[in-house]
Amino acid sequence: MATGKRFKAAVVGGSGYGGAEMIRRLLVHPDVELVRVASIDFVGEPLAAADPALEQVTDLVFEGIPPGEAAQGVDVVLLGLPHTVAASKLAEIAAASPTVKVVDMSGDFRLKDVASYERWYKHTHPCPERLKDFVYGLPELNREAIRKARFVASPGCFATTIELALLPLARAGLLEGVVHVQGITGSSGSGVAPSAGTHHPVRAGNLRTYKPLEHQHVPEITETLALAGARDLQLRFVPVSAPLVRGILATAFVELPEEWTPARLEALYRETYAGEPFVRVPRKRLPEVAAVSGSNHAEVGVAAGAPRNGRRTVTLFGATDNLVKGGAGQAIENMNLMLGLDEKASLADPGPWPP
Amino acid sequence: MATGKRFKAAVVGGSGYGGAEMIRRLLVHPDVELVRVASIDFVGEPLAAADPALEQVTDLVFEGIPPGEAAQGVDVVLLGLPHTVAASKLAEIAAASPTVKVVDMSGDFRLKDVASYERWYKHTHPCPERLKDFVYGLPELNREAIRKARFVASPGCFATTIELALLPLARAGLLEGVVHVQGITGSSGSGVAPSAGTHHPVRAGNLRTYKPLEHQHVPEITETLALAGARDLQLRFVPVSAPLVRGILATAFVELPEEWTPARLEALYRETYAGEPFVRVPRKRLPEVAAVSGSNHAEVGVAAGAPRNGRRTVTLFGATDNLVKGGAGQAIENMNLMLGLDEKASLADPGPWPP
Amino acid sequence: MATGKRFKAAVVGGSGYGGAEMIRRLLVHPDVELVRVASIDFVGEPLAAADPALEQVTDLVFEGIPPGEAAQGVDVVLLGLPHTVAASKLAEIAAASPTVKVVDMSGDFRLKDVASYERWYKHTHPCPERLKDFVYGLPELNREAIRKARFVASPGCFATTIELALLPLARAGLLEGVVHVQGITGSSGSGVAPSAGTHHPVRAGNLRTYKPLEHQHVPEITETLALAGARDLQLRFVPVSAPLVRGILATAFVELPEEWTPARLEALYRETYAGEPFVRVPRKRLPEVAAVSGSNHAEVGVAAGAPRNGRRTVTLFGATDNLVKGGAGQAIENMNLMLGLDEKASLADPGPWPP
Amino acid sequence: MATGKRFKAAVVGGSGYGGAEMIRRLLVHPDVELVRVASIDFVGEPLAAADPALEQVTDLVFEGIPPGEAAQGVDVVLLGLPHTVAASKLAEIAAASPTVKVVDMSGDFRLKDVASYERWYKHTHPCPERLKDFVYGLPELNREAIRKARFVASPGCFATTIELALLPLARAGLLEGVVHVQGITGSSGSGVAPSAGTHHPVRAGNLRTYKPLEHQHVPEITETLALAGARDLQLRFVPVSAPLVRGILATAFVELPEEWTPARLEALYRETYAGEPFVRVPRKRLPEVAAVSGSNHAEVGVAAGAPRNGRRTVTLFGATDNLVKGGAGQAIENMNLMLGLDEKASLADPGPWPP
Repeated sequence: MATGKRFKAAVVGGSGYGGAEMIRRLLVHPDVELVRVASIDFVGEPLAAADPALEQVTDLVFEGIPPGEAAQGVDVVLLGLPHTVAASKLAEIAAASPTVKVVDMSGDFRLKDVASYERWYKHTHPCPERLKDFVYGLPELNREAIRKARFVASPGCFATTIELALLPLARAGLLEGVVHVQGITGSSGSGVAPSAGTHHPVRAGNLRTYKPLEHQHVPEITETLALAGARDLQLRFVPVSAPLVRGILATAFVELPEEWTPARLEALYRETYAGEPFVRVPRKRLPEVAAVSGSNHAEVGVAAGAPRNGRRTVTLFGATDNLVKGGAGQAIENMNLMLGLDEKASLADPGPWPP
Repeated sequence: MATGKRFKAAVVGGSGYGGAEMIRRLLVHPDVELVRVASIDFVGEPLAAADPALEQVTDLVFEGIPPGEAAQGVDVVLLGLPHTVAASKLAEIAAASPTVKVVDMSGDFRLKDVASYERWYKHTHPCPERLKDFVYGLPELNREAIRKARFVASPGCFATTIELALLPLARAGLLEGVVHVQGITGSSGSGVAPSAGTHHPVRAGNLRTYKPLEHQHVPEITETLALAGARDLQLRFVPVSAPLVRGILATAFVELPEEWTPARLEALYRETYAGEPFVRVPRKRLPEVAAVSGSNHAEVGVAAGAPRNGRRTVTLFGATDNLVKGGAGQAIENMNLMLGLDEKASLADPGPWPP
Repeated sequence: MATGKRFKAAVVGGSGYGGAEMIRRLLVHPDVELVRVASIDFVGEPLAAADPALEQVTDLVFEGIPPGEAAQGVDVVLLGLPHTVAASKLAEIAAASPTVKVVDMSGDFRLKDVASYERWYKHTHPCPERLKDFVYGLPELNREAIRKARFVASPGCFATTIELALLPLARAGLLEGVVHVQGITGSSGSGVAPSAGTHHPVRAGNLRTYKPLEHQHVPEITETLALAGARDLQLRFVPVSAPLVRGILATAFVELPEEWTPARLEALYRETYAGEPFVRVPRKRLPEVAAVSGSNHAEVGVAAGAPRNGRRTVTLFGATDNLVKGGAGQAIENMNLMLGLDEKASLADPGPWPP
Repeated sequence: MATGKRFKAAVVGGSGYGGAEMIRRLLVHPDVELVRVASIDFVGEPLAAADPALEQVTDLVFEGIPPGEAAQGVDVVLLGLPHTVAASKLAEIAAASPTVKVVDMSGDFRLKDVASYERWYKHTHPCPERLKDFVYGLPELNREAIRKARFVASPGCFATTIELALLPLARAGLLEGVVHVQGITGSSGSGVAPSAGTHHPVRAGNLRTYKPLEHQHVPEITETLALAGARDLQLRFVPVSAPLVRGILATAFVELPEEWTPARLEALYRETYAGEPFVRVPRKRLPEVAAVSGSNHAEVGVAAGAPRNGRRTVTLFGATDNLVKGGAGQAIENMNLMLGLDEKASLADPGPWPP
């Protein structure tokens, strides 16, 4: 069983969809060995109890151990716990060793502003003293800081998609004031627990908005894009649930000075993401979910209308797989950076076609 | 075979999805008898050749006759022909008798402005002299004119949905300048011919934008809402194709003065549609496609954000079945009005649940 | 509110999918008025609380009254209660008046043999004394008995589909011994409660068998086909859940003497169902779900292989919408027969295309 | 660009779904470098023209070169050409060098019997002289022969699934005479060209049988299982198309002596596949598509009924992803064996959850 891999990882909170995708990527990772998975569900059962695709693929079982114990002897802990639970367990994980690194997939350490967290997540923050130690895990913005970080807060799925779609504008100083955004999402974003919103008979033929103008990813996006140059960004975001499993497509509308022609905007987007391993501007089409489903790639793009009175409407698009670049894939990408590994390790698969 | 029904109808161009839905509604119509269906496809074959649900339900066959001949002896002709073909056949249909009424589902007679038509449909208009005789068939706006009309241009699917979502604002004088709209549509909107965009292996897991800021329904919406009170409306519309079969969900973003509180907006919407047989403002939820799929009902709704600097973002929602209220159902509704019948005849079915 | 309809109906247990479809058909029924809906869920709320398609379509609310009270003053009660609950409420319903008729959608009164019921439903029968009073509601087999019945047990969805596919063979004396059957079903068959098997993220891409050789519809089918002439039928039935919402496709395999050529078999099937309002043998294709989805029609068909050693394999197909002909539609059909109405009343809609 | 990989491969016929999956696996293969892709479509365009998931992932373009030229300088050619085209190009490929190996995904070299090929594929075989040189590429049956082969015919999707489900019975001498099989398939099995059967509006809600008792995979399965011990197998196979993208679920019905109890059958299945890298018998559930979608794993299982007159009905199940273990994944698996590599190279990914 000695794999000879250089690093050891533990997953804490491994029975959800984020856990499944992290476990999958770790099992085929060339440099990091998954040594244990802690969970309060399925204790003592094989990982296949939560993810049937793992049937007879690994001998690991879900262990009903405290997070601090799970963190013993590993180089990195990947947290797949729910919001507020993640923060409540951080102290004991950090105490397991002075060097254990943590990638957290929850929303607990993404916002620097405790008040904002408590307003949007409607909960007292369980561990505000650690907020300053966390780096926001969007490599396209914070790659060097992530490399040096001990703690990384991996971004949310809508947040990743919208941030990547707007980042070039923020950096160019073009993002200011009210911006309208619609994000459309697949059902896996709702998680592993069956509910009315994911009941197949209704979901399969439905388009439905929820939490319009009130989604908890808004402050995360606003904080992040402010760091990149956005000024007083007022994101007006309407999410829609659609009948697919994996994927998010986001559309943002902004009004820009007419000198921002389609060609100039496209050049800005290409330049911003030149050299990025996981973000691309498709050459002959706009971003679409099928192209990124199952992979860690994001697609971004831009379309601009005719000028009028000195301004033109510009629409920005982003597409991701919410469980990969919008979730567990990006968590692995962050782990790779934190451990000094190839950022693409275990993430190079371009994904299936058709998805 | 004498049905004793009071009126006779012919469908011209009956082998597409619009034709199928019109035929279905006519077959169960209490007052209008479908006497023939003309088509250039499936000539001589039962209607079930195009719509398997009609197997052994009717003895009618597709007749390969000219539109003018199809119009002989009927009270009303329903046109399910493609754009430009509809207009090119109108003269001979109108000549069949001085009283035959026509409901056209194509885009040919929706725009009053020939130049606009030719710019958006990229085709010389085949019958511009008749444009002035057509009434735009949105009953919520033009009911009385439709009742008296000989010719009605039935609205497009995106157009119907967006117009109903914005009509209350237009009437209240609140619609002006740039408005951002996203519309998400099912695959039946692409019609009966297989294509890359409706190929199941890709469509089933995709979200994809197309024609952003360039959709041909934009001028139709702009003209219509101007009649209702919109001023210099600049619609910026981005359509998205999603993996469901029937349904459109539209979201519009506008910035209004802060005195337009959520409660006041909801009251405006309820008041506008009070008494309307086919448009409703759901009481405890926002519009969703599953609720209207398979029925002639549209749902509209509103959500508003917190005020800031004297203004607030307001989002307007509309949901329809693109083939019913957004297509053939509304064509039947127009026919009912033109013939002096109950507007709801053959359209009262609330639709399936789950859809 | 006086509708002038000749009969009055109550639905008891109206918050599930069967209830929704019965309510929908009653609301557009020309001769039967739905006067109340009893339920233990959503008490006091509009029917739209369970079926959003009914929003503002009716003023009825769910009433939290006992079944016996719900049966007061109506001509017919339609039961949409779960198995065992239906039987436990029958006595009080029957006592409401000496003439009230009952159509039961549950499995409680389908089997004549109490021991069989208790073996398959794993429950003591709550009302065995009434079994003899119930007629099995498959009109193609029992139409005249249904017309005279006070109590009808409406068939199950798999049962209806398989029985219709095999009925011609049973009548022709060709059904004997072991028969292999696979039935594939949509997710609405699992009912309104979210569960792991109907969770959209997994269901949307899955094909999964369940209860192979153990489904509770087997004795119902065996009893019914025995009445039609089957001898010692041993049905070996494997159900499969598939990612669609509505519809069942069943395939049965039998070995017949070679003189049963494809042409002779097709003639047998056509003859059996000639004149049936809701069962058809498609002319140029085999049964398919899309053709019957949303309608009360069933399709049946046959394909036969080459002969070998005096015998040939024959495959029989059946397709229904599990909620209509396989459920609530057939319940309404039975009600129509019991009340002496047109069997097709409120069921004539051929259904949508595409579905 | 020197990758340092030990072997070089070319794909010929790379613009279909089989090609896309082979290319994907080669791009992440540790030991085999994809050096070129020949195609008659998309010549000169990036591979992303056919598979958007490859956008900016590789610099390769589709080359419009003859197959013989494509085979120059490579160790292995993977053929993704249509039936009959593959065979017509084999001679020139084989002539490229005396050592170039070939894995063919078409049906051209699977049947040893030319007459059978010509009856089922309705075409004169273009290269019958090479039939004897091909090994049938089912590793679970022919692993050692594949290792030594120069030419391998990779199995069909239904064939793989059904063969794996029945192989243990064949080996145990239990497979004889008539066997009934139903196979349910996703839409990707129909390939990349849009058609009526894969048109989303209809496919999304349909279950439809096609070619009942006439599918061209039947002789392939019969020949293969005969080699494993089946006697006079008469496969009666009915395929069904279902609304998912990837995956096949097959169910076979056989009648066995009653001493073949469920426990004994399960032991037989476990024993047969113990040690197999890509076939598993799930421990606590039956095979399902979601568990294998996107991976090279197959699942098989068995359920048995109660005995009667000395015999019992036994049902055998198989599940695969038709494009991976049922197609291109198995082609790569064969390539790995032929090149002396780890059979699991580039195929170890357990696949996504949810799929």
